Amino acid sequence: MIESPINLRLGQLAKLANGKIKGDDQIVICGVAPFDQAGPTDIALAAEAKFLNRVEECQAGALIVPEACQVKVGNLLLVQNPRAAFAKVMAHYYPARQSQNSISNTASFGDDVSMGKRVEIGDFVSIGNHVKLGDRVILGPGVVLGDHVVIGDDTTIAANVVIGTHCRLGCRGLIQAGTVIGCDGFGFAQEEGRHLKIAQTGNVLIGDDVEIGANNTIDRGTFGSTRIGNGVKTDNLVHIAHNVVVGDHTLLIAQVGISGSVTIGKHTILAGQVGVVPHISIGDRVMVGPQSGVGKSIADNQVFTGSPAMPHRLFLKVAHILQRLPDLRKRILRLEKKLKEIGEQKRR
Amino acid sequence: MIESPINLRLGQLAKLANGKIKGDDQIVICGVAPFDQAGPTDIALAAEAKFLNRVEECQAGALIVPEACQVKVGNLLLVQNPRAAFAKVMAHYYPARQSQNSISNTASFGDDVSMGKRVEIGDFVSIGNHVKLGDRVILGPGVVLGDHVVIGDDTTIAANVVIGTHCRLGCRGLIQAGTVIGCDGFGFAQEEGRHLKIAQTGNVLIGDDVEIGANNTIDRGTFGSTRIGNGVKTDNLVHIAHNVVVGDHTLLIAQVGISGSVTIGKHTILAGQVGVVPHISIGDRVMVGPQSGVGKSIADNQVFTGSPAMPHRLFLKVAHILQRLPDLRKRILRLEKKLKEIGEQKRR
Amino acid sequence: MIESPINLRLGQLAKLANGKIKGDDQIVICGVAPFDQAGPTDIALAAEAKFLNRVEECQAGALIVPEACQVKVGNLLLVQNPRAAFAKVMAHYYPARQSQNSISNTASFGDDVSMGKRVEIGDFVSIGNHVKLGDRVILGPGVVLGDHVVIGDDTTIAANVVIGTHCRLGCRGLIQAGTVIGCDGFGFAQEEGRHLKIAQTGNVLIGDDVEIGANNTIDRGTFGSTRIGNGVKTDNLVHIAHNVVVGDHTLLIAQVGISGSVTIGKHTILAGQVGVVPHISIGDRVMVGPQSGVGKSIADNQVFTGSPAMPHRLFLKVAHILQRLPDLRKRILRLEKKLKEIGEQKRR
Repeated sequence: MIESPINLRLGQLAKLANGKIKGDDQIVICGVAPFDQAGPTDIALAAEAKFLNRVEECQAGALIVPEACQVKVGNLLLVQNPRAAFAKVMAHYYPARQSQNSISNTASFGDDVSMGKRVEIGDFVSIGNHVKLGDRVILGPGVVLGDHVVIGDDTTIAANVVIGTHCRLGCRGLIQAGTVIGCDGFGFAQEEGRHLKIAQTGNVLIGDDVEIGANNTIDRGTFGSTRIGNGVKTDNLVHIAHNVVVGDHTLLIAQVGISGSVTIGKHTILAGQVGVVPHISIGDRVMVGPQSGVGKSIADNQVFTGSPAMPHRLFLKVAHILQRLPDLRKRILRLEKKLKEIGEQKRR
Repeated sequence: MIESPINLRLGQLAKLANGKIKGDDQIVICGVAPFDQAGPTDIALAAEAKFLNRVEECQAGALIVPEACQVKVGNLLLVQNPRAAFAKVMAHYYPARQSQNSISNTASFGDDVSMGKRVEIGDFVSIGNHVKLGDRVILGPGVVLGDHVVIGDDTTIAANVVIGTHCRLGCRGLIQAGTVIGCDGFGFAQEEGRHLKIAQTGNVLIGDDVEIGANNTIDRGTFGSTRIGNGVKTDNLVHIAHNVVVGDHTLLIAQVGISGSVTIGKHTILAGQVGVVPHISIGDRVMVGPQSGVGKSIADNQVFTGSPAMPHRLFLKVAHILQRLPDLRKRILRLEKKLKEIGEQKRR
Repeated sequence: MIESPINLRLGQLAKLANGKIKGDDQIVICGVAPFDQAGPTDIALAAEAKFLNRVEECQAGALIVPEACQVKVGNLLLVQNPRAAFAKVMAHYYPARQSQNSISNTASFGDDVSMGKRVEIGDFVSIGNHVKLGDRVILGPGVVLGDHVVIGDDTTIAANVVIGTHCRLGCRGLIQAGTVIGCDGFGFAQEEGRHLKIAQTGNVLIGDDVEIGANNTIDRGTFGSTRIGNGVKTDNLVHIAHNVVVGDHTLLIAQVGISGSVTIGKHTILAGQVGVVPHISIGDRVMVGPQSGVGKSIADNQVFTGSPAMPHRLFLKVAHILQRLPDLRKRILRLEKKLKEIGEQKRR
C-alpha cells in the first residue's frame, strides 16, 4: 500500500541490521515484501524452515536469514536475530509518520498549555488547562486531553483518543485510535443494595516506548496511579482497571481484562481474552495462554493456561482427557458392571 | 419510537415480500409491531409455533406467517421465509436514514477530496488528502478519515468512527459508531527482551453490503490487506487483527477476537466472545459456539464449541459429564474400595 | 493527584458518615489516603482484619473502622458500614466535577434544543434536533447526541460518547468516555445465504443514578426499548444487545457481553467477561462468576460459575477435579488392569 521512497544497497542494510552479506552487497533494495510476493528489488524475511527450504522459489533481491542457515543461493543478509533485523529494515523503509509541525486552526486550547518543538495538532483537538506536550508530539484529529495532562517527546496520540486529567505519558509512545486513558475505575461501596461511588482521585502513568492498541480502556487509580511500565505493548480492546501495575516490556494481547489492583511483572505475556481477578500478582517472564482465567497469583517464569488457569503442561493433559471424558465414563460403567458380575458370581 | 409515515395495503405488501394473501388484501397497514403489541393497523411476524399457536390473541391487522401454516383466522401474508419477508416489510416502513445532502461548515477537508452526489458530512468531520467518497455517502459527526481512504456509494459511517490511511470500503455499508478501521496490528520482534515495532504498511479492504458494529477494531495488514468480504456483518466490540481474511456473508457476533493472519470462509458464524489463535483457517459454513477458543483449523461445514474447541456433539457430551465429575470421582473411589476388598478376601 | 481544598474536623465527618468518635473529635482532617500512605492530616479506611491488626503502624490522623472493632488506639470514626462511610467521606473531599456553566463556542446545535440551568457543553459537541438537556448536565468534548435525545438533571456525558436518536437518560448519571448508546442491534434475516438487515426502530432508556463505563456499546431495541434500570453500574467494554433489560442496582463488570432480549433482575452481579446467550432471564440477587457462559435462565438468589455456567459450589468441585483428571484417568487404567488380572486368575 505504502511505497517507500528510500533505496539502499544491501551492504548498507547489513550495517543497519548488524549482519553479514553473502552474495552481492551492491544490489539496490527499494522495499520490503513478504517471501512469496517479493520481487528483484525487495528484501524478504526467511527466518523459519518453511521458508528456508523454499529459497529457490523466492524472487526477492535479497533475503534476511539466520546466521547459522545452510542456504547457498541468492543474496543473503545473515543475522543473529532475523525478526529483529526485519523490524529494523522495515522501520527504515517505512518510517513512522513524522510530525507535520502544524497546528490545526480548529483545535481548542485551554490556559497554560506548553508545547515543545515541531508539535502536530490535528483537527478538533480539545486540550485542557495546564497541559504539557513534548517535542514532536502528534495529536490526531478529535483527541481530547484533560487538565494537567503531560505527554513526552515523540509520542503519537491517534484520532479520537481521550486522556483524562492528570495522566502522564512517556516518550516515543503510540496510543492508537479510540482508546480512553484515565477513566474512572469501577469502585463502589454497597449500602442497602445501592452502590455509592468511591471517588477516583488518582491518575495513569505510562512509561517510555509504550504502544497502546485501539479502543483500550485504562482506569485511573482510586488513590495514586495505575502504572504502565516502559516498553509495554497492548493490543486492541484491552481493559486495565484502577491501580493495576504492568511491568516493563510486558505484552497484553487483544481483549485481555485486568481487574483492579493487580500487579503484573516484567517481560510477561497475557494472550488474547485472558481475564485476571482483582488484587493478585503475576510474576516476571510469565506466559498465560489464551482465554485463561487467572484466579490466583502466579510466580515468576511460569506458563499457565485454562479457566481456572493451571500450569500449562497440566492444562495440555487435562484438555486432552476432557475430550475423552465420554470414553472414560463408559469405562467406569464397564468396570462397575464387571465388579457387579464378580460380586454375583461369589454370592452363588 | 420511530413512527413510519408510510401506509400500504396488505396486497401491496404481498408484492414487496413475494407472498400470498389470505383474508382482506385491502386492509391498510401503517407500521410493524411485535406480536404482543401490534394493533389493528400494524402487521406482525408469527414465524414460530409459540406465536402461531396464539394467533387468536393477536390484535395485529395482519400477520406474516409461513406458507405451510394451518392458521385459519385473520389477514395473513403467507411467505416461504417469514423472517426475510419481515425484514423487507420493516425496511419499507422504517427505511435507513437517507443522506441529507448537506455538508457541515464545521467539517475539515484535506487536498484532493472527491465526493459523489448527495453526500452528507456531519459536524467536525476530519477528512485527509486524496480521499474519495461515493454517491450518497453519510459521514456522521466526528468521523476521521485518513489520507487515500475510499468509500463506496451509499455507505454510512456513524459518529466518531476512525478510518486509517489507504483503507477502502465498498458500497451500501454501515460502520457503527466508535469503530476503528486500519489501526496498526500487534506486530513486534523481540530483541533482548524489548519489542521492536514492525511497521504496518498494509490496509483494510471491506467489501459491499458490510455492517460493522460499534467500537470494533480492525487492524491494517502488515503487508497487503486485511480483507472483509461482501455481506459480512460484525456485532459490537469485535477485534479483527492484521491480515485476517473474513469470507463473504460471514457473521461475527459480539466480542469475537480474531488473531493475525487467520482465514475465515464464507457463510460462517462465530458466536459471541469466540477467540481464534493466529495463522489458522476456518472453513465455509462453519458454526462456532459462544466463548469457544479455536486453536486449530476447522474444515468446511463443521460445528465446533468449547475452549479448546471440539466438535459440537462431543462438546455437549463433555459438558454433560463435566457437571457429573464429582459423581464419577466417587464412583472411582467406590470401585477402588471394592477391588481392595476383593483383593483382601483372596489373601485370606 | 487531586488535592482537596476542604478541611473538616473529625466530629463533622462523624455526622456526615453517621458514626461515632473514639479519640479527638477536634482533629482537622484535610484529605483521605490509603492505609499505608496516610499522614497525620488524613483519614484512612481500616475495614478488614488485615488492616485492623496493624493499626499501630498507621500514620493516619484518623481511621474509619467497624463499630464492633476492638481497636484501642488513635482517633477512630466508628461506623456500621465502613466502606459506605469511606465512599461518603471521599465524595466530600473529592466531589465529582461540577458543571462550569459554560458553552463552548465550537459546539454545534440542531433545532429545538432545550437546556436547563448551568449546563456545560464542551468543545466540538454535536447536538441534533429536538434534544432536551436537564439542569447541570455536562457534555464533554466531542460528544455526539442524535435527534430527540433526552438527558436528565446532573448527568455527565464524558468525551467522545455517542448517543443515538431517541435515547433517554435519567438523572445523576455518568457515561464514561468513548461509549456508544443506541447503536443498531445485530438483527438480520437470512435469505439464500445473505443477511437482510432488520430495521432497528427502538431506543435505549437509562434510569437514574446509572454509571456506564468507558467504550461500552448499548444497542437500541429492535422494537421498543433496551432498558437499563436505576442505580445500574457497568464497567468498561461492556456490550448490551437490543431489547436487554437490566434491573435496578445490578452490576456488570468489565467486558461482560449480554445477547439480545435477555432480562436481568435487580441487585445482580455479572463478573468480568461473562457472556449470556439470547432470550434468557437471570433473576434478582444472582451472582455469576468471571468468564462464565450463561446458557440457561437462572432463578433468583443463585450463584453460578463456569462455561457452561453451573451452581457455584458444583463449579468449585468440578474445577478441583478437573486439575486431577490425569490422576483419575490413571486410576481407571489401574482398575482395568487389576480387574483383568482377576479375570485371568479365575480362568486359570
